[in-house]
Amino acid sequence: MVIGLDVGGTNIKGVLIDGRKIVARIKIATKSRTDKNMLVGQIFDCINNLKDRISKIEKIGIAIAGPIDFEKQQVLNPPNLVALRGLKLGKLIRDRFGIKTIIDHDVNCFVLAEAILGAGKNYKSVFGITLGTGVGGGMVINKKIYHGAHGSSGEVGHMTIEKNGRRCGCGNKGCLEPYICDAGIKQTAKEIFKKQIDSLRVFDDLAKKGDRRAIKLYETVGKYLGIGLANVVDTINPEVIVVGGGIMRAGKFILAPAKKEMKKNILSQGAKKTKIFKSKLGKFSGAIGATLLNL
Amino acid sequence: MVIGLDVGGTNIKGVLIDGRKIVARIKIATKSRTDKNMLVGQIFDCINNLKDRISKIEKIGIAIAGPIDFEKQQVLNPPNLVALRGLKLGKLIRDRFGIKTIIDHDVNCFVLAEAILGAGKNYKSVFGITLGTGVGGGMVINKKIYHGAHGSSGEVGHMTIEKNGRRCGCGNKGCLEPYICDAGIKQTAKEIFKKQIDSLRVFDDLAKKGDRRAIKLYETVGKYLGIGLANVVDTINPEVIVVGGGIMRAGKFILAPAKKEMKKNILSQGAKKTKIFKSKLGKFSGAIGATLLNL
Repeated sequence: MVIGLDVGGTNIKGVLIDGRKIVARIKIATKSRTDKNMLVGQIFDCINNLKDRISKIEKIGIAIAGPIDFEKQQVLNPPNLVALRGLKLGKLIRDRFGIKTIIDHDVNCFVLAEAILGAGKNYKSVFGITLGTGVGGGMVINKKIYHGAHGSSGEVGHMTIEKNGRRCGCGNKGCLEPYICDAGIKQTAKEIFKKQIDSLRVFDDLAKKGDRRAIKLYETVGKYLGIGLANVVDTINPEVIVVGGGIMRAGKFILAPAKKEMKKNILSQGAKKTKIFKSKLGKFSGAIGATLLNL
Repeated sequence: MVIGLDVGGTNIKGVLIDGRKIVARIKIATKSRTDKNMLVGQIFDCINNLKDRISKIEKIGIAIAGPIDFEKQQVLNPPNLVALRGLKLGKLIRDRFGIKTIIDHDVNCFVLAEAILGAGKNYKSVFGITLGTGVGGGMVINKKIYHGAHGSSGEVGHMTIEKNGRRCGCGNKGCLEPYICDAGIKQTAKEIFKKQIDSLRVFDDLAKKGDRRAIKLYETVGKYLGIGLANVVDTINPEVIVVGGGIMRAGKFILAPAKKEMKKNILSQGAKKTKIFKSKLGKFSGAIGATLLNL
């Protein structure tokens, strides 16, 4: 029996897993992103809630929305979870509950879950990318997360794809993120629809109804995504790419043009066969992936 | 004792290695890129030449200038070595000489040599890139080549860095290669010096003498290289990047601006520490790397 938690700036989600079966779920709103005692208290509450249902917990895994030093098992500086900055959260939980605890970046946990149990489960090397408020990514090789030398593998939202292009939140110009993240798509939608955009959900419905401009919007997004994915394939040539995150509500309207553009941009004939799948495990994928973490 | 050969469109280079010491070298001009019997005959001659110097050869490694299916040990379609297309060259050599033979892409052999014996020897993950007629790349993790799912890892010359930018030899626009390969640098030089450029060697001397326009030329090249290297780091975060190939005659005039631009473009603070080194092993690095190949 393993507990997995996904600690984000909006929610804390948790699962209790027996073997590969989810036996309990929990989801609570994050009360504070900046108050350490309050946030750690909420994390402890979630663990207690799941722990009390069962006698023996072998391991706890925690997915954190932000950068982690995996080797030191220390949270770095998550912009949306300032409360956890510098915290050795794994040790803190182990000391409190006496249970082995492992922490990692939530995107890595997402990719691990999809690589072991989800859309990538039949493949040896899986690159995962999430499109939401930001754009995250990670690589799983032979069912293990590839962290890279400084724990920063998978930051593909910040690869340059259009030198001197749109300004990115990181300060540089022409990163992939400002073309395919929530705010970026809203900007493109504003250019196409000539009005202020509050939510992208309306375009999902419009696209399904065959609205040309909504389809064009997602084609534009898909083409940029495809360029980014081709860069990933040319660089590291994974067997499959799994795309997740809230933006993927638009599904095939983004993925179909992305696949086409990716194929056009990949150099090698062999690598043009790289598969792209939509993620399968839904909103608890980070928590599920956290249960699969190993040191 | 191991033989390593580097088969290119211009030369075939060979080394005989005892432990980690080069005991013999050979270099001959490639007579034909298209005549299979002639080219294979030359490869056999090189092996015989090196083999005859010693009683017992354990292994032969062959670096090929072009794509390889490593698992099948088969040459794919090397544009500059058409003679070898589809050939199971390793098997052919083993059948002829009775010696275990392994083949791989020459850029992979270059990176392996630098990762084990050269500029990257003290590091766990090494990304290598070569700047010459084309731009090649490869990744070595824990002293082993990472081929990727379709054997196409490291094709970073063809990542898009400036959408709708310069036309690349692959047919797409805005790849990295046309900004940092030999012909691409000549094009940039033509724009700066307003005249036709036959060779880049003159600019190496001019830059050393402090010529502003030559320095500006290599700064421009270095900035593009830096953008490409930052994309590699954001994607896969190697510990060190080794840059080789003929263009590296210009050394620091390219690497200094490349490092600066790379650092600016990398997202993570940790990964900004990624080291860039010039390759160390010289023109026989491909042949040396071939001796280090393992299945």
